[in-house]
Amino acid sequence: MNEAMTEEEVTLDAFHRGAFWLVQPARRGHRAGVDAMMLAAAVPGSFSGRLADLGSGAGAAGFAVVARCRASSVTLVDRSPEMLEFARRSLALEQNEDLRNRIDILEADVTLAGKERNAAGLEDRSFDFAIMNPPFNAGVDRATPDALKRLAHVMDDDLFERWIRTATAIVKPRGGLALIARPGSLHAILMAMAGRFGNAEILPVHPREDAAAIRIVVRARAGARGGLSVRPPLFLHGKGDSFTARADDINNGRASLFGD
Amino acid sequence: MNEAMTEEEVTLDAFHRGAFWLVQPARRGHRAGVDAMMLAAAVPGSFSGRLADLGSGAGAAGFAVVARCRASSVTLVDRSPEMLEFARRSLALEQNEDLRNRIDILEADVTLAGKERNAAGLEDRSFDFAIMNPPFNAGVDRATPDALKRLAHVMDDDLFERWIRTATAIVKPRGGLALIARPGSLHAILMAMAGRFGNAEILPVHPREDAAAIRIVVRARAGARGGLSVRPPLFLHGKGDSFTARADDINNGRASLFGD
Repeated sequence: MNEAMTEEEVTLDAFHRGAFWLVQPARRGHRAGVDAMMLAAAVPGSFSGRLADLGSGAGAAGFAVVARCRASSVTLVDRSPEMLEFARRSLALEQNEDLRNRIDILEADVTLAGKERNAAGLEDRSFDFAIMNPPFNAGVDRATPDALKRLAHVMDDDLFERWIRTATAIVKPRGGLALIARPGSLHAILMAMAGRFGNAEILPVHPREDAAAIRIVVRARAGARGGLSVRPPLFLHGKGDSFTARADDINNGRASLFGD
Repeated sequence: MNEAMTEEEVTLDAFHRGAFWLVQPARRGHRAGVDAMMLAAAVPGSFSGRLADLGSGAGAAGFAVVARCRASSVTLVDRSPEMLEFARRSLALEQNEDLRNRIDILEADVTLAGKERNAAGLEDRSFDFAIMNPPFNAGVDRATPDALKRLAHVMDDDLFERWIRTATAIVKPRGGLALIARPGSLHAILMAMAGRFGNAEILPVHPREDAAAIRIVVRARAGARGGLSVRPPLFLHGKGDSFTARADDINNGRASLFGD
């Protein structure tokens, strides 16, 4: 994101140094940023096939995947018609003409299950990969009293169980999963992945070399049996405020997070 | 360890640049090394009180704690009389005279529970801190077929459940726990800590900056409710084969792993 043009209530932002552009709400809703770019960078550059961007919002991560993975197609899935309207406006932009035919949009609630999920268009075994950036920030970061904390943990468990249950259903055998979350959600994520996804790789994201991780990116494969590994971390910033070279490459679609 | 003197079946090795010495079996049993030094370095330098080194073997981690934490005392706990005999021989060394009165030895099986555990000398709420380096390498690293892998996972779950159950029982409220394990054991560890230890801190240990972690050190506090965090990793080696400055400091008792 290096250019922004205010147009009433929306902004028009360039990503991947202009490889794609997004129309986003200026003030309300979740605005895309580094989280979405890191999530998209967890998909191997050589990936070909259908990918579901679960809880896509305005579509930043999904757009980033089709921009970097030239043989991929992406379905943006969100329950918010307002956010998907922004995605539709982005698709209509002349700047996104080359990517347009590899992106489609599905209005559906990711937390649906069984027949309802299939009826909503999230069909069993219909994708090769699922990515997700669950709404983990919703109020939780500001909840400090013990009672609220416990509630947040319960919500967390439930959130990841529902979202990963859907990923399990919609990806084909050996299909991929990538998600970005707060480190505090790790146990809930591992619980939800158990018996469903294996070969899990955890990549911690630290703001600086000497600070605790603010995010984890987790990648895994459906039905795989291999154990968990911890990959070398990503440090976002160097000594000053500027991005490290690696973070800048990832943010701009020039490198993958897991080196593939 | 920078000097070794073979004496029939044992070696005499200096640790922490000569701050303490250990008698160890030359060929059989688990020989202490970097794992034990990293585990000991997870204890804050200011720690004072009683610490249990569960599954101590010949006592390397426990010796390293008393050498660095000058107000601590340590009980070495192992079920193997042979390994504890090495610890006794180390305690008798003139070189360890200054540390001797802060170390005692308890022959007991860490996996005992309830009355049997108390009767074996591992009394409830009698320690301020427990450290453990469970025998996770026993055959597991060489098990490649799927069946053996699954068995190893089951063993892993059970291992950490039993060991952490004992730590839960013997530490006082708000007491500390630190353990070192393979990354693949992370889920088993989090399961075993759930509802018992909180404020968990995970510190991945990588052989080099660009390689997956080979160990995780996990630290937590009994009865605490805070969530999990991922600390900046330790890289053992730089470009060549030599230790990084930080790894060398930790290996030699001049720095703590978590910066306290």
